[in-house]
Amino acid sequence: MTEAVPVQKFDATVAGLYLADGDDFVSRSVSRLDLELAGISGDIHAGISRKSGAREPWYPRGTIMRNERQLSILSVAELAEVAIAMGIDRLEAEWIGANIVLDGVTDLSRLPPRTQLFFASGAVVRIDGDNGPCRDAGGAIARNIAGREGLDRAFVSAAKGRRGLVGWVEREGKVAVDDEVTVRIWPQKLYRIK
Amino acid sequence: MTEAVPVQKFDATVAGLYLADGDDFVSRSVSRLDLELAGISGDIHAGISRKSGAREPWYPRGTIMRNERQLSILSVAELAEVAIAMGIDRLEAEWIGANIVLDGVTDLSRLPPRTQLFFASGAVVRIDGDNGPCRDAGGAIARNIAGREGLDRAFVSAAKGRRGLVGWVEREGKVAVDDEVTVRIWPQKLYRIK
Repeated sequence: MTEAVPVQKFDATVAGLYLADGDDFVSRSVSRLDLELAGISGDIHAGISRKSGAREPWYPRGTIMRNERQLSILSVAELAEVAIAMGIDRLEAEWIGANIVLDGVTDLSRLPPRTQLFFASGAVVRIDGDNGPCRDAGGAIARNIAGREGLDRAFVSAAKGRRGLVGWVEREGKVAVDDEVTVRIWPQKLYRIK
Repeated sequence: MTEAVPVQKFDATVAGLYLADGDDFVSRSVSRLDLELAGISGDIHAGISRKSGAREPWYPRGTIMRNERQLSILSVAELAEVAIAMGIDRLEAEWIGANIVLDGVTDLSRLPPRTQLFFASGAVVRIDGDNGPCRDAGGAIARNIAGREGLDRAFVSAAKGRRGLVGWVEREGKVAVDDEVTVRIWPQKLYRIK
């Protein structure tokens, strides 16, 4: 087993699209999204830059930084796995603020940084990397499921390694449900300090 | 040997800084650079967006895309290795359009996508990934070294895997020669299509 992998490419499908145009990260199902260089038109996470938060402990909170987290991308398979791990019947993508849910990608959250998603329209998203589960998203799940204690914490542990990806718009275009998407993974090689 | 590597961090030094403010990619030595979210102030590669070129065969040439190639980052060690491989006495960073040359990084070109460079001032650069050698840069070397044929092609082969990195400004700030920089590498895991 070598520590290098050449370019890989495969096709997947857009299973769902969601827009967070309310007053928090929770999104709602839509039939298409308009991707612009600043992100998803009308979405709470749109912007060329953003303010840092708890995910960037190396910055004072509120530091202006380039926005590499314009979109949240999940997979049908990982949503189902997390629901099973939490012991709940269903986990809706919008509860945890998804923008794009893909079908046909194994281990979506493990797609490496720099991976490109080429949508049928010509729109392209570049992946920054995996997302980390947080209790805020877990809390949104808890609000939708009655009679279960501690679902916020349960989400953090159940979603570890399968909370999906974040990324940014590389090329503008529209995306529609059922569109094909080609996933292109750059050559990989592990780096170890010698 | 597992296929996963945890977070790694180490310190390096800014050995040289260069600005490409002429009419092509060739840069000139400067004592400091002003990093803005759009890139290096005054540099030919600055911009929130850019036009695609030969490096993006998946786009019609001239397609507007977000600029993930604002800066060219090289290392003292790889510059020396490439010079030896080409059989030339010296390879100046500015000939091939470097912006930042680092000292103290082993195998710089292999640093993975998403790696962050934290400069002493607070400026932060995020790495998109490794750069590919091209004959234009090789041609600039040839113009500086008399009496040697084919240096443009020789560069392409000698610089393979050691042409440095490209990246973009995540947080604004100034960078000066001799500044310390902390390199932070995210956890790595190889992705293979099953």
